Amino acid sequence: MQNMVEKVLKGDRRAISQAITLVENHPDQCAEFIGSIFRATGKAYIVGITGPPGSGKSTLVNHLALEFRKRKKKVGIIAVDPTSPFSGGALLGDRIRMDDVQTDPGVFIRSMGSRGSLGGLSRACIDAIRVLDAGGYNIILVETVGAGQSEVEIVRTAHCCCVLGIPGTGDAVQAIKAGILEIADIYVVNKSDRPGAQEIVNELKMLLSLDPNADQKGRWKIPIISTSNIDKTGIEELTETILSFHNHLNNSVEFAKDRELTRRKNEILEIIKVEFFDNILENLVNKQQWEKILNDVITKNLDPYSAAKSIMDPLFG
Amino acid sequence: MQNMVEKVLKGDRRAISQAITLVENHPDQCAEFIGSIFRATGKAYIVGITGPPGSGKSTLVNHLALEFRKRKKKVGIIAVDPTSPFSGGALLGDRIRMDDVQTDPGVFIRSMGSRGSLGGLSRACIDAIRVLDAGGYNIILVETVGAGQSEVEIVRTAHCCCVLGIPGTGDAVQAIKAGILEIADIYVVNKSDRPGAQEIVNELKMLLSLDPNADQKGRWKIPIISTSNIDKTGIEELTETILSFHNHLNNSVEFAKDRELTRRKNEILEIIKVEFFDNILENLVNKQQWEKILNDVITKNLDPYSAAKSIMDPLFG
Repeated sequence: MQNMVEKVLKGDRRAISQAITLVENHPDQCAEFIGSIFRATGKAYIVGITGPPGSGKSTLVNHLALEFRKRKKKVGIIAVDPTSPFSGGALLGDRIRMDDVQTDPGVFIRSMGSRGSLGGLSRACIDAIRVLDAGGYNIILVETVGAGQSEVEIVRTAHCCCVLGIPGTGDAVQAIKAGILEIADIYVVNKSDRPGAQEIVNELKMLLSLDPNADQKGRWKIPIISTSNIDKTGIEELTETILSFHNHLNNSVEFAKDRELTRRKNEILEIIKVEFFDNILENLVNKQQWEKILNDVITKNLDPYSAAKSIMDPLFG
Repeated sequence: MQNMVEKVLKGDRRAISQAITLVENHPDQCAEFIGSIFRATGKAYIVGITGPPGSGKSTLVNHLALEFRKRKKKVGIIAVDPTSPFSGGALLGDRIRMDDVQTDPGVFIRSMGSRGSLGGLSRACIDAIRVLDAGGYNIILVETVGAGQSEVEIVRTAHCCCVLGIPGTGDAVQAIKAGILEIADIYVVNKSDRPGAQEIVNELKMLLSLDPNADQKGRWKIPIISTSNIDKTGIEELTETILSFHNHLNNSVEFAKDRELTRRKNEILEIIKVEFFDNILENLVNKQQWEKILNDVITKNLDPYSAAKSIMDPLFG
């Protein structure tokens, strides 16, 4: 492992790839490995790109990677697909569209699906980001379907969150309802060549204007950027806006510190969750106690909520 | 609430609908509500239908519901879509295709998306099943995209799990890798009118034959059933097979008991998870301790795994 650590820190692609496999498949070894590279992390700018299936995330990420390459940044890409037990194929298809960047040694692409234990995906994704960070990638793009809670957790680990919508889907309203907009630092209307693009921009502007603190001095004003993967409209603007947000973070000490605290806390909570699920939860009570509780539930003398309470109360009061 | 309980137990559709809304949106009231209806549950036969996006789950569930109605069963349908913050529209589209059953008073349909806290979806889904069970629905079909861990948890709460694949997608292999096949009691090759249907059947037969216990006496042999939503091929066979599995459960005391214990345990674990996330996790240490820990992490004197360990060790040893 020490060998792997050294190679990762030197930016060796093969070692980085192996290290991500390690954090993905061997959670038991993560503590030691991440402990070894931890001091070399914290340099990368982590950008989350989230949006519904079919919103053109992968292609947009491809274009962004090219723009960042033009600006001499090394780019890491992590594509997270929580539905991947089935859509491994689709994801591969997405990645094939990313040919432009796949052969560039300054770009590292990795797909991650949900596997292993609940909470494991976010934890593994956070650790994969750390590996790329330690390996010298300056910008790490994390692409996720804006969906389940574990995705929201992943996005929370980013410095900058870009939320994608596309015209004609009512996504803006859905996103508001789901609280997705609340996590946006930049809103992107992708496929803006399609009919209805201006409507979604207007809708978003209206929604964003409802925030009573929107005009507060020194506060980041969430921009709405229209992009198109076809004619590359807005790609450069989005790239520059992502970089502007980085400057904003660097210049807004309080804001950046708050974010950092939240990010760090979330990272630790993720690790605790996985540990709780994998190694603690089922052993909160012993085998005999489980038998008694389950028997009481099956004979309907105890409902499941009371059963849960009887297990938790002695521990957590 | 007492009024709602009584009405649910009488099968009042409006009350059932309100009760599901309650378990979905007011987890704090679930313990009391589920406690009140718990004795009336345990009569329904719960059937999980899981498969990738686009595998025709909704339409198949529609057809199955019609078949069960012919057999004088009251049918509850819960369609779970963990990506629903964005795909609410798509799900609605799916449901419109279910016209045939939507106007039938012997059928109750409900869509559930991921919202609220992590783990909340499975917990809410399990409780919604309980509501329908207490409300007198004999068969409850739970339709999920076979994807994230929370879906696997939902399927685990079913008595019978039907896993869907479609021709030409390599789903079988993906499903194996993801451990989805391990949870199948019945394998369904849907859209079997498409090219490649026989190949996936053969592939599955081969994969299932690898199980060394496959021929054990009295053991359920996982059937592979080809269905088509177009000409309704195999729908009746699938219906009968689902009912046969129910008989198998009723006749295999040990097997059924094992399952029941696992199901009940999972239900309780779900409740504990949600409680742990929502009310316990962040308060494992106090504010001052959090500040110190986070400061140590930010200054890189403590890596996140060691931080997590320092929080958990005093509690769980």
